[in-house]
This record gives sequence, C-alpha cells and structure tokens, in this order.
Amino acid sequence: MTSVRTSRTDAFVADLRELVPAGSILTDPDVVAAYASDQSRLTTSEPPAAVLIPHTTAHVSACLQMAARHGVPVIPRGAGSGLSGAANASADAVVLSLHRMDAFLEVDTANRLVVVQPGVVTADVRAAAAREGLFYPPDPGSVEFCTIGGNVATNAGGMCCVRYGVTGDFVLGLEVVLADGRILRTGRRTVKGVAGLDLTHLFVGSEGTLGVVTEVTLRLVPAPRPPHTMVATFDRLTDAGAAVAGIVGSGATPSMLEILDRTTVRAVDALMHMDLGADVAAVLLVQSDHADAGSELERVAAICSQAGAVDVMSTDDPAEGAMLLEARRQALPALERLGDWLLDDVCVPLTAVTTLIESIEDIAARHDLTIGVFGHAGDGNLHPTVIFDGGDDSSVRAARAAFDDITAAALALGGTVTGEHGVGRLKAGWLREELGPVGMDVQHAVKNALDPLHLLCPEGMLRTP
Amino acid sequence: MTSVRTSRTDAFVADLRELVPAGSILTDPDVVAAYASDQSRLTTSEPPAAVLIPHTTAHVSACLQMAARHGVPVIPRGAGSGLSGAANASADAVVLSLHRMDAFLEVDTANRLVVVQPGVVTADVRAAAAREGLFYPPDPGSVEFCTIGGNVATNAGGMCCVRYGVTGDFVLGLEVVLADGRILRTGRRTVKGVAGLDLTHLFVGSEGTLGVVTEVTLRLVPAPRPPHTMVATFDRLTDAGAAVAGIVGSGATPSMLEILDRTTVRAVDALMHMDLGADVAAVLLVQSDHADAGSELERVAAICSQAGAVDVMSTDDPAEGAMLLEARRQALPALERLGDWLLDDVCVPLTAVTTLIESIEDIAARHDLTIGVFGHAGDGNLHPTVIFDGGDDSSVRAARAAFDDITAAALALGGTVTGEHGVGRLKAGWLREELGPVGMDVQHAVKNALDPLHLLCPEGMLRTP
Repeated sequence: MTSVRTSRTDAFVADLRELVPAGSILTDPDVVAAYASDQSRLTTSEPPAAVLIPHTTAHVSACLQMAARHGVPVIPRGAGSGLSGAANASADAVVLSLHRMDAFLEVDTANRLVVVQPGVVTADVRAAAAREGLFYPPDPGSVEFCTIGGNVATNAGGMCCVRYGVTGDFVLGLEVVLADGRILRTGRRTVKGVAGLDLTHLFVGSEGTLGVVTEVTLRLVPAPRPPHTMVATFDRLTDAGAAVAGIVGSGATPSMLEILDRTTVRAVDALMHMDLGADVAAVLLVQSDHADAGSELERVAAICSQAGAVDVMSTDDPAEGAMLLEARRQALPALERLGDWLLDDVCVPLTAVTTLIESIEDIAARHDLTIGVFGHAGDGNLHPTVIFDGGDDSSVRAARAAFDDITAAALALGGTVTGEHGVGRLKAGWLREELGPVGMDVQHAVKNALDPLHLLCPEGMLRTP
Repeated sequence: MTSVRTSRTDAFVADLRELVPAGSILTDPDVVAAYASDQSRLTTSEPPAAVLIPHTTAHVSACLQMAARHGVPVIPRGAGSGLSGAANASADAVVLSLHRMDAFLEVDTANRLVVVQPGVVTADVRAAAAREGLFYPPDPGSVEFCTIGGNVATNAGGMCCVRYGVTGDFVLGLEVVLADGRILRTGRRTVKGVAGLDLTHLFVGSEGTLGVVTEVTLRLVPAPRPPHTMVATFDRLTDAGAAVAGIVGSGATPSMLEILDRTTVRAVDALMHMDLGADVAAVLLVQSDHADAGSELERVAAICSQAGAVDVMSTDDPAEGAMLLEARRQALPALERLGDWLLDDVCVPLTAVTTLIESIEDIAARHDLTIGVFGHAGDGNLHPTVIFDGGDDSSVRAARAAFDDITAAALALGGTVTGEHGVGRLKAGWLREELGPVGMDVQHAVKNALDPLHLLCPEGMLRTP
C-alpha cells in the first residue's frame, strides 16, 4: 500500500516539475516535516509527501489538475496557525502552501475595498486599510501572523465580532481554483448583489474542502473612533452573567465584550502581576468606539455595579485601555505556562454564557484538571482551555474527555461545537452530532458536487463517513 | 404532450389529497390563475395546474415527496411581490404558496432573535422587534406586504442596507424542505458558528431553486435612535456624484443614502406637488441614526454644498424627516402614472453611480423612452424604471432593449445584473453573462446535488441551459 502511494506521489511530483518552477516543489524530509500539522493539539498528522509553494493562480491550477490526474490528496495551507487540524497532512498527500502568494493586488479607497492574494498577513490588511483611513475589523488572536486565505477558510473571528462581524462579513468575492484545476470567480466588487447562488459564502469556512482560494476581495469600513475601555471584576460568576445579560438587554453595542474566568484571571495574575485579585471569579472587559462611547460605558459600568461588580474601572485613554486589555491578550500565554493545553472553541446563546462556564467548572473538577475559560461573552463564543500533561497518558485521556464534555455541554445549551476555530480533524466527529444525518448528507452532496474524487482535505471536516 | 402533463399532475393531486387537508389543494381555474405570476413585467407565465397551501412543514414535505414521485415541477411562492418572475408558474407545475405558514414561533428578547414561519409579513417582524426595543433592519419597498420567506429566497434589501446590510445578514438558521421531501436544518441560534459548510447562506438568495424554506431564525439588533434627515438638490448630476463620493470618503456611515434622478424628481413633483424644482438634476436623501447624527449630517450637508448643491435642508424631527422621505417613497408610484413600467435593479461600485445614471440618460434618448432612476446611492444599487406602452409592440421592444442596455452598462462598470430583486425568469439569460461558463457550471453542479430531478423552479435562475 505504501509503495503504491509513494509511486503515485513520485509520478505526480515528476509530472508537476514540468509545469511549475523548480523551487515550488519541496520534498526534503526535514522541510516537509515542518508542514505536517497546524497549531492544533491531540490531532493526527504525518509529514506530507511533498510541499507545493505556488506563486501564481496558474501554478495552483496546474497543481490541482495534476493531483486530480494522479489521484493525490491535497491539503491547502495558510500560515499554519489553525487550531483544529484542518491543515494537518497525511503521508500520501501533498501540502499546498499559499504563503508566497502574498501580494496586495489593489487598494480601492473610493470603493472601500482591497483585493489581496491569500498569503497576505491579516495584520497587514488592517494596516493597509488604516493608512487609507479605513478599517478591516476581523482580529483573530493570531492576527499578526495568520493569513487572509486561512481566515477565509475558517471564517475567522476575533474580539471585534460582537460589533463588526466575522471574516465572511467582509468577503465580497473570491477567486477559487477548483479540485479539477478550473478557475472560478465568485461574488463581485459591489456591496450588494444577488446574481446566482451565493458561492462566495459557500467557500468561506469550507476549510479547504471545496477548492483553493487564490484571491480575496475584501470590503472595508470607515475607521472607528479610538475606543473607551472598561474593566469590571466580580467575585461571583453569576453576577458577571447578570452583567452580560444587562449589557445586552440595555441596547448597548460595545465594540468588545470579553470575559475571563477565575482560573484564567489567576494565571494572568501570576504571569503579569496585574493584581486582579485572588477572589475574583470573573473579569469583564468592554470597549466602545461610538460617538457617545463615554456615556455608553458609563451605562455599562452602572449595569456592572448593579449586578454586583466588586471593582469597575474606565478610561477614555486608548493607551490605558490597551494596558487593561493586556489581561485578555495574555490569557492564553498565561494558561500555556501551566502545562500542555488544549484550546476549545464553542459558542452558546448569550443567555447561556455563564451557565456554560459553571458547567466547565464542574467538568474540570470531575476530571481533576485545570480549565481556564476566556472569550467573547458578547457573542457567546468561549475558549475553554484544558491544561494537561502530554507526557502522562491518563492526563491526555482526561483532557480529551473533558474537551468532549465541554463540547457536549455547549450543544446541550443550544450552542455550536465551534464558533470560530473550525472543525478540522479535531471535531469532525462532533460535526455529525451537531448537524444530524440530513445535514451531513447535504454537506457531503455539496462536497461531492465540487470535489468528486475527494482529494481536497480527505481527512478534514467532510471526511468520508 | 399536454395530456401527459395533465394526467401527471392529476395523479399527483389525487395522491396528495390522501396526505394533506382538503382545503390545501386548489385547482379552480379562476383561483389558480391568480397564482400565475409575481409582480414582474415582460416575463412569461401560465396558470399552474394546482396551488398547494400547506399549513405545516409536514405538509410541505408531503407535497415535495409526492411531486418528486410524479415528476411534477414545484414553484414555491411567498407574497408574490417579487419583480423578477422567480415565482412565475407553468401549466405543468404546481405553485406551493407559503402564506398560511405565518406564525411567530418564538421571540427571544434576551438572545435577540425571532423564529418565524416563512409567511410572516416583513413589517410584522419589524413591529414585533420594535415592541421588544429591538430592530429588524431589512426594509424592501414591499415591506408592508412581502413575506420573510420571499425575502430569504431573494436576499431582499431596502434603504437600510447602506448601514445595516441585507436579509442574509440577519438569517442565523433555516428549516428547509429539500426537493425529495427531507427536512434539513441549517445554521444555529448563536451569533457565531462555523460547524460545516455554510448551507444557510447557500439557501438565502437561491430563489426557491434548492428547497423550500419553512422556518427562519432571524437575528435582531438594538433599536436605533430616531434618525436625522437631510435633503440636497443638485442642478448637475456630476455634482450629486461628487457629493456621494465625498460622503463615502468622509467616513460618515449614514443609515440611508438615496438618490432620485431628474426624471424621477419631475414625476414626483407632478404627483406630490413637492416643488422640488424643474431644473433639478438629482436629489440626495440622507439619514443618520448615530448618537452624533446631528453633527454627522452637518458634515454631510457641508459636503453637498461644497459639491454644488443648490438647496440643502436638514431636520432632527422624525416626522419632518418622514415627510422629506416621501419624495423617495413615491418615486415608483409617481413613475407608474407615466405608463407601463419595467423596474430594473442593478448594482455598481460606489464610484460608478452617476456614470451609470448618465449612461441611462443616453440609453433613454437612444430608445426614445422615459427612464427614471432612483435607488440606494450609498451602496451603488439603482432601480432604473423604464416607462413604455404595453399596447404598442415597438414600445415593448424598445423597453426590453433599453432594459438590456442598462444591464450591460452596469456589468461593464464592474457591477452586477441584480443587486436585490433577483434573477428569476427576467434575468436568467444575464446570469450567464455575469458568471461565465465556470461559474454557471458550479451553480448547476450545486443545483444538481440538491435537486437532481430539476423540479424546483425549472424555469428560474438555474434553468437548464
């Protein structure tokens, strides 16, 4: 079996060398090993047979056409910062890394859009927009190194989503190379448009299973005002939950509404010496970038106090606000210091946020594990982070069981198994739980229509059942 | 041929009578004739063989299962207010009218969502939201009588889109009956979620070609402030274009930015005696509902004056603002008085709005027709309205030619053949022009995957080539 696979990829690579520049095909074992997996934990992966580094859409098309001819699986990859194993490789597959296709093709200020290749780093899009007095909102945690192609593939989110939406809300159109090498253009350059089925948003979030994105047209919005920032600490989790409900119910539209739980606060305190308090059960961080941000955050502060906040602090100074935000930005680094970590990503209705955190406290106790929870309270999207010892089999088993318990709890609360990180290899099994048999059938029908040979990410979210 | 078709639908109706209540199947020729077409002009249609009026999702499922068994085409229909002929019937088809499925299933204020059946009138959703201090933004021109099901099918827009987005931006999840009768649930109740391919937005805007929507979960937003309103008149179209560009470039985010051209202004003046002025080449109507709406509209007014506006008028009084808006609301009624009308719907990049209006002036002159243009300048979505004499063949031919010229002009400017009305029968031919052969192939591949017998809207936007 291995020899068949090897000879298949060898023949593929030999044929492909005729079509793309020499440097675009990497087969050195040390090099390809670096492309075996993304940043996910507890997912399977193997070094791929080769890594392809296209410079043009024509190269991508040649790679996919040749892969289809030889029956070689292809795993498209952005910066490899994903957390669900969607970009993980297998030994019989080739990885198609889009990092060299990193050009800004167009910045159209008057029509508020940019056209970029998939390898452009997200932070660079935000910076280019800012230079024109415009704003590209999506800000995943990996914003400084993740790429737009990966963001499109996973429909990435971030802290801005509560007010501005996710990556897909800013994608106007795509160029996609299909599994057979044909080049498809979807969407348009206009803000509105309903000509035909919405293929753009079919590809957004498809995790590389339907085609390879080679160009992205992104909508920009006017630059917001510098935000005002508020931090509130609570010594009871339910009080923080009441505050979140109160803020949502007040009609406030903050540009950020984040929560840190007790475990995360302690870890951050240990790392940053921010003196948030040993008895703190939860911290809420809120920003507003409205014209009336000051009075909006005054109302929010009053709601927090009424809900039982121990301490409330506000500032209209962006630098001070950024310092307050450090508690949130350091949440994962702080938890990482406690051991190996498995970062989850579930989303529940707004009213279930603190109920889920309570369930997670029970799950942590039951499995005798430390689990820190932080995330986007304003849209119900939390990141429970399970700390474990990767060198201890029973600890790994406990971590995985806790992870599954958390995902089940989110589903039971009317939520989803993934809010922004994606399904990948990590949650392919959970996808069926959430979507049910008819849902899965339709997902696979669409997959079959676009990739009948099942060569794109065959072990990803739409793996053969 | 007719007899085969007749016996096929007769057998279908006979079998269906066993499964659904007697009153749900209408075959009286006078009654079915009323379901032959939507509000589109110059589209083909025939009275359907029968009209089915389901009361439950189970009825819809039974209808589609039975239709698949007998090979009978099915045309889903909302209020019939569509303008593209997507709901037009054929003699061998049955119309499935969802108007009786008009229940509010849930209003969840704390999680800011409603769950409704497709037959709920859009204005009723807006009213229900308002009662809870919330807001459902989409406001198509037909908002008082169109239904949510139809809005989802066409991804309907309106005047709010410039700030709030279109119907699809508020659809969290759907229940859809597939062509074979199976019941699919897509999406979720949470604000974010990336579990699997985005099937929700594949069905939004699919014009009944992929399935029948039987339940819609809609996201609501906090109620905005009462808007401030500004009206500016221009005696040169290019000045109005400069004003639009200036407003967009200023970073202002108005909640409405509408334009009326010379022909429309004259028609409105004749109807309403608003005395907008015989020399007016264009009118801009702008609203803002921000906390700083007053200062935002002051800036907008200054931009208009600088661009050469003849007259600028502002008010912070909502009632006065509504009166100023009447010029826009009466645009179509005013143009309707001039003769038969063919209402177009194209969308171009923001910078091309007045270029398109100039092109349309040329097209009107060339075909010796009156064409009024009004629409959503803030998102490039215009509604050129061709006035013609339906009793005069040469006038009908000229109207159709002018309509095609307008659509071609929009495409040439980097636009789309439809911004919010949809493709339907009216523009099925233009869809291929816009999407190209690969785009059409993929559209049909998805259609085939979900409706392999081609029974849903077989003469609609994805009609067999």
